[in-house]
Amino acid sequence: MKKIKKVNASILIIGNEILSGRTQDKNIAFLSKWLNQNCGITVSEVRIIPDVEKVIIKNIRLLSKQFNYVFTTGGIGPTHDDITAKSIAKAFKVKYGFHKEAYRILEEYYGKKKFNDGRKKMAKMPVIAKLIYNPSSAAPGFITKNVLSLPGVPSILNSMIENCKKYLVKGLKIHSKTINVFTVESNISKQLEIIQKKYKKKVDIGSYPFFRLGKIGVSIVSRSTSILELNNASKDLMSVIKIKKIRILRI
Amino acid sequence: MKKIKKVNASILIIGNEILSGRTQDKNIAFLSKWLNQNCGITVSEVRIIPDVEKVIIKNIRLLSKQFNYVFTTGGIGPTHDDITAKSIAKAFKVKYGFHKEAYRILEEYYGKKKFNDGRKKMAKMPVIAKLIYNPSSAAPGFITKNVLSLPGVPSILNSMIENCKKYLVKGLKIHSKTINVFTVESNISKQLEIIQKKYKKKVDIGSYPFFRLGKIGVSIVSRSTSILELNNASKDLMSVIKIKKIRILRI
Repeated sequence: MKKIKKVNASILIIGNEILSGRTQDKNIAFLSKWLNQNCGITVSEVRIIPDVEKVIIKNIRLLSKQFNYVFTTGGIGPTHDDITAKSIAKAFKVKYGFHKEAYRILEEYYGKKKFNDGRKKMAKMPVIAKLIYNPSSAAPGFITKNVLSLPGVPSILNSMIENCKKYLVKGLKIHSKTINVFTVESNISKQLEIIQKKYKKKVDIGSYPFFRLGKIGVSIVSRSTSILELNNASKDLMSVIKIKKIRILRI
Repeated sequence: MKKIKKVNASILIIGNEILSGRTQDKNIAFLSKWLNQNCGITVSEVRIIPDVEKVIIKNIRLLSKQFNYVFTTGGIGPTHDDITAKSIAKAFKVKYGFHKEAYRILEEYYGKKKFNDGRKKMAKMPVIAKLIYNPSSAAPGFITKNVLSLPGVPSILNSMIENCKKYLVKGLKIHSKTINVFTVESNISKQLEIIQKKYKKKVDIGSYPFFRLGKIGVSIVSRSTSILELNNASKDLMSVIKIKKIRILRI
């Protein structure tokens, strides 16, 4: 049997509009979930940085060394503040220019007459890059070494995500189980600690307070690559938390 | 007149639940907006990291040197996975233990009988820290050197934010103006670039596509510390973008 390793990734959100609070990011949660559920890839770090070339270059160099994959979002459109492609080329010291296949795709999509300079800019990228096809608005994303660049608009990003799959090595999927308890964290903190210690690095147990339908509760989320360990930990949690109103969710 | 400088900050979101995509972060946009509008502080970088001590320590050391302020969210509750306070103490090599004032506040809030170990844990922090009072659930946040630690639950964080003000030096407020145009980015990219070049570092112009009520448009967002420059840039933008349906929003 092929041995499957742990595979990790980081997400680099490039965009002043997220940093200023003007736009609420939606790509982090989407990407993280998709990567784990479809590829067994764990997102280990996220950074949000401004549209500043030297900042992008520094982060691309650092994160691409540190993680198996880097996903960038934003900055690949037609305007002056879209500098992701150029910055990635500089980070890897590879040629930046018209990508033949991307140029052909965009020219065909817009038609020769409407293929203006702004649109042509979207065909400019590291020339060594491979394309990530875009079924909703044509302008492709691209992968340069281990860096996958996607647009910032969530609906477009979502439509392209399946086309990233062929470039990704799959890892061990992380399964999770959620136990919802109507109590406060401090009433169960001791018990949680005991169970976490028992399962050490095999199961990762987190606790998150919630307020729902006027009730206060705690979601106890257990995560593991082993379903067996996950089930055992859940049983143990149930037996030590002596509260009646418990609801188990399996994700 | 007192000269006001540019003041910046970073946000460090600590929590596996955000990284896994289980929870949609809401604190980044809230904190960024509040800091800019109320304190003239620009958020220059955001990081989301897991509940891992060595990762927290590394990031606290790095970001506290690089930015005027660091805001952490998450990991200050009563359970085993709440390790922010201890990690910050380690990062700055200061004593971690019961904070007298925090202990007193929590004991008073819960009453001596209900002040269990989990609740007592919330009084443990760097002993040199100053408190950020919490009007909704008592457990205080705290400031250690230039690092302000807040809880992860958005409603509690929001209720505490005004109590951060006294610890912050105000900076120059960044004003912004948004022009909404019903067109596509590639039709106006050339004009935007010309105006951005004219105002270079005085005004920062960003463009963001939107889909609203079945219509496609672009929000052109100009940001500047100078209202005069902002108005001039907006006038220039209006004159070069020869599209009728324009709506101006002032934020």
